[in-house]
Amino acid sequence: MAIVVQKYGGSSVATAEKIKKIADTLIKRKSKGDKLVVVVSAMGDTTDDLINLAKEISPNPDKRELDALLSTGEMMSSALLAMALKEKGVDAVSYTAYQIGLETTGNYGKSLIKDINDKKIKEALNKDKIVIVAGFQGVNEEGNITTLGRGGSDTTAVAIAVKLNGISEIYTDVDGIYNCDPRKYVKAKKIPQIDYEEILELASLGAQVMHSRSIELAQKYNIPIYVGLANGEMNGTLITEVVNMETKPITGIATSDEDVAITLEGLDAKMNIISRLFGTIAERKISIDMISQSAPVNGMVTVSFTIPKDDLNECMDILKKAIDAKHIFIDTDITKLSMVGIGMKNTSGVAAKVFQIFAEENISVKMITTSEIRITCAIYQADKERAIKLIVEKFNL
Amino acid sequence: MAIVVQKYGGSSVATAEKIKKIADTLIKRKSKGDKLVVVVSAMGDTTDDLINLAKEISPNPDKRELDALLSTGEMMSSALLAMALKEKGVDAVSYTAYQIGLETTGNYGKSLIKDINDKKIKEALNKDKIVIVAGFQGVNEEGNITTLGRGGSDTTAVAIAVKLNGISEIYTDVDGIYNCDPRKYVKAKKIPQIDYEEILELASLGAQVMHSRSIELAQKYNIPIYVGLANGEMNGTLITEVVNMETKPITGIATSDEDVAITLEGLDAKMNIISRLFGTIAERKISIDMISQSAPVNGMVTVSFTIPKDDLNECMDILKKAIDAKHIFIDTDITKLSMVGIGMKNTSGVAAKVFQIFAEENISVKMITTSEIRITCAIYQADKERAIKLIVEKFNL
Repeated sequence: MAIVVQKYGGSSVATAEKIKKIADTLIKRKSKGDKLVVVVSAMGDTTDDLINLAKEISPNPDKRELDALLSTGEMMSSALLAMALKEKGVDAVSYTAYQIGLETTGNYGKSLIKDINDKKIKEALNKDKIVIVAGFQGVNEEGNITTLGRGGSDTTAVAIAVKLNGISEIYTDVDGIYNCDPRKYVKAKKIPQIDYEEILELASLGAQVMHSRSIELAQKYNIPIYVGLANGEMNGTLITEVVNMETKPITGIATSDEDVAITLEGLDAKMNIISRLFGTIAERKISIDMISQSAPVNGMVTVSFTIPKDDLNECMDILKKAIDAKHIFIDTDITKLSMVGIGMKNTSGVAAKVFQIFAEENISVKMITTSEIRITCAIYQADKERAIKLIVEKFNL
Repeated sequence: MAIVVQKYGGSSVATAEKIKKIADTLIKRKSKGDKLVVVVSAMGDTTDDLINLAKEISPNPDKRELDALLSTGEMMSSALLAMALKEKGVDAVSYTAYQIGLETTGNYGKSLIKDINDKKIKEALNKDKIVIVAGFQGVNEEGNITTLGRGGSDTTAVAIAVKLNGISEIYTDVDGIYNCDPRKYVKAKKIPQIDYEEILELASLGAQVMHSRSIELAQKYNIPIYVGLANGEMNGTLITEVVNMETKPITGIATSDEDVAITLEGLDAKMNIISRLFGTIAERKISIDMISQSAPVNGMVTVSFTIPKDDLNECMDILKKAIDAKHIFIDTDITKLSMVGIGMKNTSGVAAKVFQIFAEENISVKMITTSEIRITCAIYQADKERAIKLIVEKFNL
């Protein structure tokens, strides 16, 4: 008899009708003998509605009070789901973060889970109840309500699974994780099983399927996570520790068009000028992602880097004051194309093969960064679809 | 420097604009040197909206989960008010029932306050913060969220005032307590000061200005309650212990059209038949209010009593089965007219004077009940306005 900690996203509990449907799904699952803990997000657009209400009061709402406000969304949906189960004759109980001693640490709006007191959950499970938990929220050391950030309910579910030594199932509005974005590429394929590290690289690069911290937590305690639709078919994606290192070098591809590339030509090659430049940009909380630098020619170098599009104007102000470059070029039509695969660890020459493919097909790579299991290239947006098609074909994705 | 515990009703905090206005009022009040604790109800129709949502899920929502759901309304408004104060540069903090250890006992939906841990509130007041508390809610011994019933935020405010030995101010959408219903009688006069007992008699008889338990609590600990509009003018009504027993015999008049009178004619005068009758009705949770019985004639009596209109059909079923009366008459057009005054204690003949006035003016009194400070007559609805006018004139209200 497994302990299963499920999470349902906001769109799954958006209306009374949908909540009743989830109740039916839970009752069917319970009849198979599993003990169920269910973490819910706020109904539909509730969180956004509450944020808008707060902004009517204050353009920059006090963070403690905003968290207290936002936490009510999940309290509502959890009480309603427990109600729906009881209406259908199945015993259930809803708990807030306070009630299960879900302790957090760190800042409001992005706090981290420190511990959970599982006494109440276990007692309720032993009484054969389905336990519903309000996701996304916690209580810090001072007894204040905090939230875990967008998608934080995923982390609530995984943390409870860790505590109860159960498995976690994240039900969402996508039917699993794909090797590239299925909304953009019809040939995208669902990945039945993927390693924690691979999904972490994909999540941080724009795939946005899961809350990154939930995966880090699952990886740390080796708790499997299933991701998919709540249709009872279990044909989504299982995130787990790597089972077979002899896999394909590239498992998935993610892209992001949210960055802009800046190139400074004819910059004095003295190291302290360049480091001062990046220091000044960092002080203004602008995050630089990719950086490349040419070899010096006559004491002059060319430096390129990417920043989020939103920060372009501010960054240009800094550059004009701080830097004496001959030319400053801005590329707004770049895309970051990331190829991720746990198999890269054991397969040499993956980056070389990628470059070769791109060179043969006249796809120019402006910048490149790599990690042990990831290669990211900045290419022109016009080349994006062709580049993905080539990688999918040549690496047999 | 007084500790003032204020309560604002749902209509005072119905929109972001209104919440900002309350914040301005609080800042002005604080500048006069008072320490402020502010209890808020849910915004506007939030509680009704949540009840409707629950009813979409279940026609009879589970009571524990309904309380958990409803408590979110006050959490929202309290967080928003604290936000509004901070936006205006005044330090504030919102607390839920959990956070101030507001312990309750008794049933869901109508629980009673057992105790409050005032540590957090006092600490915040000492740091010169305005403390905002979510009204209407508490936590019972098992750690479950409970609510105090409609109007329960009044009781939250008075309970905190008791604990902090402060005074309480209930801000609502009426400008005070009147000697009769000002929506119905243009000549109604506002009462500047009224005794706890008088307002209790008026509240339970349909004046519906305040949550009865809040007044009982204030009376027990002798905490004054001010009731009025939040316009800063303080020209509402002060509820306090009686200051002067030499007051007018009648302070206020309340009416209720919610009852129906049933008259059983030709009933066997044996006591056990009549007591069995009332026993059977009570078993079905139908509350009988007024009762009158004629002197026996030939071993037969006439018994009249009032019950809530909603219970008429059920009561008639019981009567037909249980009682062998010659005739059963139903009066649906009666009104209960209650005259309340602490001065009645020291003024003899008030009831006699009321009867004399009604007799002279051909107002027939079907039934009558009295307490130490109250006279209630069941009269015909057609006579209601005339009866009130007469009492107001003859007793110089």
